[in-house]
Amino acid sequence: MSNLFFVDKISTENIQSIENEEAHHAIKVLRLSVGELVYVSDGHGKWISGPISEISKKSLAIRIENTGETHAEKPELVVVQAFTKSDRNKEMLELVTVSGADRIIPWSSQRSISKWQSDSREKWMITVKEACKQSKRFRVPIVNNQMSTNEILNEVKTGFAIVFHESAKEKFSEISLPANLDRIYLIVGPEGGITEEELQLFSTINATVVRLGAPILRSAHAGFAAMSALQTKIGRW
Amino acid sequence: MSNLFFVDKISTENIQSIENEEAHHAIKVLRLSVGELVYVSDGHGKWISGPISEISKKSLAIRIENTGETHAEKPELVVVQAFTKSDRNKEMLELVTVSGADRIIPWSSQRSISKWQSDSREKWMITVKEACKQSKRFRVPIVNNQMSTNEILNEVKTGFAIVFHESAKEKFSEISLPANLDRIYLIVGPEGGITEEELQLFSTINATVVRLGAPILRSAHAGFAAMSALQTKIGRW
Repeated sequence: MSNLFFVDKISTENIQSIENEEAHHAIKVLRLSVGELVYVSDGHGKWISGPISEISKKSLAIRIENTGETHAEKPELVVVQAFTKSDRNKEMLELVTVSGADRIIPWSSQRSISKWQSDSREKWMITVKEACKQSKRFRVPIVNNQMSTNEILNEVKTGFAIVFHESAKEKFSEISLPANLDRIYLIVGPEGGITEEELQLFSTINATVVRLGAPILRSAHAGFAAMSALQTKIGRW
Repeated sequence: MSNLFFVDKISTENIQSIENEEAHHAIKVLRLSVGELVYVSDGHGKWISGPISEISKKSLAIRIENTGETHAEKPELVVVQAFTKSDRNKEMLELVTVSGADRIIPWSSQRSISKWQSDSREKWMITVKEACKQSKRFRVPIVNNQMSTNEILNEVKTGFAIVFHESAKEKFSEISLPANLDRIYLIVGPEGGITEEELQLFSTINATVVRLGAPILRSAHAGFAAMSALQTKIGRW
């Protein structure tokens, strides 16, 4: 399977260059050769593909054969993920990315165990980008900075908010989504769950609380299950 | 969160005993004490819960306070999973189990890299059981022995077979499922994909070939995505 690399800007000529770290990775780690087919994207949807035409010490050139663009779709799909135990974050981010989330908001919830560090956002973004490469996704999801519960409440008011909680009576498949939504928020609690107080706060902004099946999902898996369910419900999958 | 233990038989009296390995795990590893609430299930849907009333050297007794049963539902949901790289099997089995598969069939497909060993089934069953404990699932999915492509073709004829492949034109959400199905098979390829020849064979038995979204899912994640999508479509989630 051909590799995908990210660059700042997609060429409008017929040669695309790859430089810096991505070039280093291609040349020194993957040891690609002239002639091999690769994909290059700007991470915002635009992409090209073609064979490597030249490899120099710190860069490589691709002869552009195909071009394309993955456009943003409406509604925007946003996963609000309470941060969970740090060793599960990588798995969570990979799953949420490949399931097509447009944006991920780290939520500092009452029962979040780990702390958000100054480099956490950068780390999350690296993981998300890796998952995009692995799954050939040309639009890299946006990772916001962490938000408190109050900030989350203000944010999710701007769209249709769905909270996943095992105590909910209503099933996800039973809810009806209004037409022409700009944005859907899927709100996933931490390993220890969303508290009663948080549920109460979400109810004040008319968030819809639903459950996903009977078994209890790990926090790191719940976002993926929710995204898969939503993608099916809105007909993208 | 209370622990779940599996036993061969659920008591019809008011005391449930736990013995052997499960007792060892409760006493020596988890170091549970008298009074702690636990769940006990026969793995076929029947369960009880209550506080530990007595701990002896190799067994413990539970005073039964609640009983229940998760019944088998129709259609039966069967994941046919080409075995993938062995280090991903654990993740795949955990995901497929918590998403509610009733049965898992290991498929020896053309591009399956790892080999099925004499103890593979036992290993898969242990992982599946662990995932049931973690997610409080009282019906443990059945793990079949490995099947060849021909055996898979014969098996999936008895139900509605859906093959997931990135080349498919039809989206999963677009298919219409016949009413009153006994069994739905979700067929997931290995890391290297389902071959053209295999796709051709599935078409001879009228399997429906669909795709799930644009990004390419890892084999270990595809079954979970497929199950989540199906659970939503049939209205269980």
